[in-house]
Amino acid sequence: MKFIYGYSLWLILFGASQVKGQNGIVVFQSDFGLKDGAVSAMKGVALGVSPTLTLMDLTHEIPAYNIWEASYRLYQTVPYYPKGTVFVSVCDPGVGTERHSVVMLTKSGHYVVTPDNGTLTLLAEHLGILEIRQIDEVLNRRKNSGASYTFHGRDVYAYTAARLASRTITFAQVGPRLPNEVVRLPYQKAKLEKDAVKGNIPVLDIQYGNVWSNIPKAMLDQIGTKPGETLHIQIVQNDKVLFDKRVRFVNTFGEVPVGDDAAYVNSLLNFSIAINQGNFSEKYKVFSGPDWTIRVSRK
Amino acid sequence: MKFIYGYSLWLILFGASQVKGQNGIVVFQSDFGLKDGAVSAMKGVALGVSPTLTLMDLTHEIPAYNIWEASYRLYQTVPYYPKGTVFVSVCDPGVGTERHSVVMLTKSGHYVVTPDNGTLTLLAEHLGILEIRQIDEVLNRRKNSGASYTFHGRDVYAYTAARLASRTITFAQVGPRLPNEVVRLPYQKAKLEKDAVKGNIPVLDIQYGNVWSNIPKAMLDQIGTKPGETLHIQIVQNDKVLFDKRVRFVNTFGEVPVGDDAAYVNSLLNFSIAINQGNFSEKYKVFSGPDWTIRVSRK
Amino acid sequence: MKFIYGYSLWLILFGASQVKGQNGIVVFQSDFGLKDGAVSAMKGVALGVSPTLTLMDLTHEIPAYNIWEASYRLYQTVPYYPKGTVFVSVCDPGVGTERHSVVMLTKSGHYVVTPDNGTLTLLAEHLGILEIRQIDEVLNRRKNSGASYTFHGRDVYAYTAARLASRTITFAQVGPRLPNEVVRLPYQKAKLEKDAVKGNIPVLDIQYGNVWSNIPKAMLDQIGTKPGETLHIQIVQNDKVLFDKRVRFVNTFGEVPVGDDAAYVNSLLNFSIAINQGNFSEKYKVFSGPDWTIRVSRK
Repeated sequence: MKFIYGYSLWLILFGASQVKGQNGIVVFQSDFGLKDGAVSAMKGVALGVSPTLTLMDLTHEIPAYNIWEASYRLYQTVPYYPKGTVFVSVCDPGVGTERHSVVMLTKSGHYVVTPDNGTLTLLAEHLGILEIRQIDEVLNRRKNSGASYTFHGRDVYAYTAARLASRTITFAQVGPRLPNEVVRLPYQKAKLEKDAVKGNIPVLDIQYGNVWSNIPKAMLDQIGTKPGETLHIQIVQNDKVLFDKRVRFVNTFGEVPVGDDAAYVNSLLNFSIAINQGNFSEKYKVFSGPDWTIRVSRK
Repeated sequence: MKFIYGYSLWLILFGASQVKGQNGIVVFQSDFGLKDGAVSAMKGVALGVSPTLTLMDLTHEIPAYNIWEASYRLYQTVPYYPKGTVFVSVCDPGVGTERHSVVMLTKSGHYVVTPDNGTLTLLAEHLGILEIRQIDEVLNRRKNSGASYTFHGRDVYAYTAARLASRTITFAQVGPRLPNEVVRLPYQKAKLEKDAVKGNIPVLDIQYGNVWSNIPKAMLDQIGTKPGETLHIQIVQNDKVLFDKRVRFVNTFGEVPVGDDAAYVNSLLNFSIAINQGNFSEKYKVFSGPDWTIRVSRK
Repeated sequence: MKFIYGYSLWLILFGASQVKGQNGIVVFQSDFGLKDGAVSAMKGVALGVSPTLTLMDLTHEIPAYNIWEASYRLYQTVPYYPKGTVFVSVCDPGVGTERHSVVMLTKSGHYVVTPDNGTLTLLAEHLGILEIRQIDEVLNRRKNSGASYTFHGRDVYAYTAARLASRTITFAQVGPRLPNEVVRLPYQKAKLEKDAVKGNIPVLDIQYGNVWSNIPKAMLDQIGTKPGETLHIQIVQNDKVLFDKRVRFVNTFGEVPVGDDAAYVNSLLNFSIAINQGNFSEKYKVFSGPDWTIRVSRK
């Protein structure tokens, strides 16, 4: 019976020294929201493949059709899971059309099951691509699901992820290998200027209204910024200047009074700006996207 | 000690060939929301019964007191879980009054623990009733919980579901058998007319604003609809016509331009209508409920 | 390999009779919301410590920086989990400043990993403190996380909780013992007056708009209230009277007509007031906080 040949028992009987690759953990991300049964149906399908899988969530509150944000949330989260974890990301405005359904294995040892529509942009850049395979939907599709064209998340992605994570199939059995390339969304990368660094605002730390840039700490180090000094920060949307001030550069918000601006390095080690216990985005009408630029200088 | 006699070890020691009935998975649904500790307290009680249970969520965002939607979300989700899964559904405006607390076993092998207040309407119809038992609250109630009258979800339903799922009790030990009948909410079923089908809008695909009907694909097949053709669709609330247009009938949204209407068969194989990457419900002010009718014709 | 030395196998091989202390369950609470990857990153770190842990959520919708509500949600939920469960609570406006990072062991056998900033107020009072230890962040901090100052939830709290829950470390190895005292937020306790009881509104039952007081059932018993009678209830914010009426005291909402006020004892056995299938808070503009007083009398 399928039940006891699941991942956990396999480990117990055959020993963990043979464990490589998939680790029995599946993490789900989508733009489905949590108000209906869609996310749960995906997990039901996964448990039908193997009831011993460990099923986790990344987020299901990706704004509808926002592939860029799906890409960012993977970048924010994937590296903190153990190697061998299988991620499913379903933000799929083109469901059923000709975008490829793929599984990407990163150089860090994480698997991502997703339509290749841009969702892999930031992971491909930050973790690197080890191998990509196209899902063979003849083999890797839930039985009797052929009449449904609009829920690949349930019928193909969750099903394939569960089979992969539970070692029902090997990575090679996902389907044919593709070139190590993914669809990449264009965005402005951080760059060093004379005595300044300039970057983009890819996303907000939305719960608190903090503004996150894509300028890495390493680039700040190159212009010599040090915690405790004040930095000159400009935030521009297209040609409109929304913020132009000197702000204290701190390690922790508590170094400035409640209500004051504070520049800092965030949990992904990128330059960010916030109000201590306040909402920077709301106060200064600063949001995120490709048309937003942030410039940091010591002068 | 109770811990190691849980479901998983039982499987390992006695072999899975004996496994029938409950599978150690409990899935929770409620109208509690996720802002407080109510859902988590139910799960704590379940883990107190057996820490080896697998605890999942359906949704906790059923609108307060909306028994119809609770019924629909079960219909949308239950069939995708393996046989032997135990569901708990707590949308219980009459908590503590004389409605029965029951466990229904469907013909598909799924258990549902719930007040019998209409929540079982659609499952009873679509999956069929194999057996129903009334919860004996003398035996199946959390110890020392007698002074609380308003949280049966925690004190009775989660507790009973966990005992059943972990095989602490058999199905018969839930309580006395009842006739195979449940409280059913009235609603307009889909029906075939001359060259047309007519049905109800039971629910929205709320995250995207798509409109789902209760007209099954099989009924569309009877009037001969084929993907690629355009269909004449009317949507009426009581006597008010909200939508009256010809719409392309597609397999996938990508077959029409972004922003165009598209008719399709949804993931439950029912007739539906959407805007490609847009919000149909918002644009046309079409919502769901017993007073909404949708009519589909090829002419 | 770390994988198979996790908690579950340890149990199977060495027997559960030795089980005391931590039970392999970790429950997360935060004010992070579920829109981004922060909660999931914490869980990824925990699974990296031990993939056999059982990871649960309390809530992640604590309003940003609202330490009082974090304290209340723990009080509402912790007692319903089995002894030995490890809770992580991250509502941490002072992240990185000098507040202590601690693990409190309650007299009921529950562990709570949190900044000591008031979050432990109600648990310390209701469950009692058995022992408190300060987290030694040299030993108990995720490797290579030293450059991040603003996400202790991921780098310290989730990591320490997972190590403790999986028995990677003992409670003593968390760090040095502190005196049995925690930072306590001030609030007005319930008190008996001549023929009346008076208390505070610590929180709303927010999904339904019910108003919860901190007046325990035991105190109502002292003035002789009985289900079925009407009680005189006054609700005051500072000096403004928002509600002053006689209300029926019931066991279950169904004892009054839909739309009527009903006083009752809630699931935590505290005095509460609601509208049967309506929203009391919205109708009477009654909210929660230290400036709200509720007075109950039989006359």
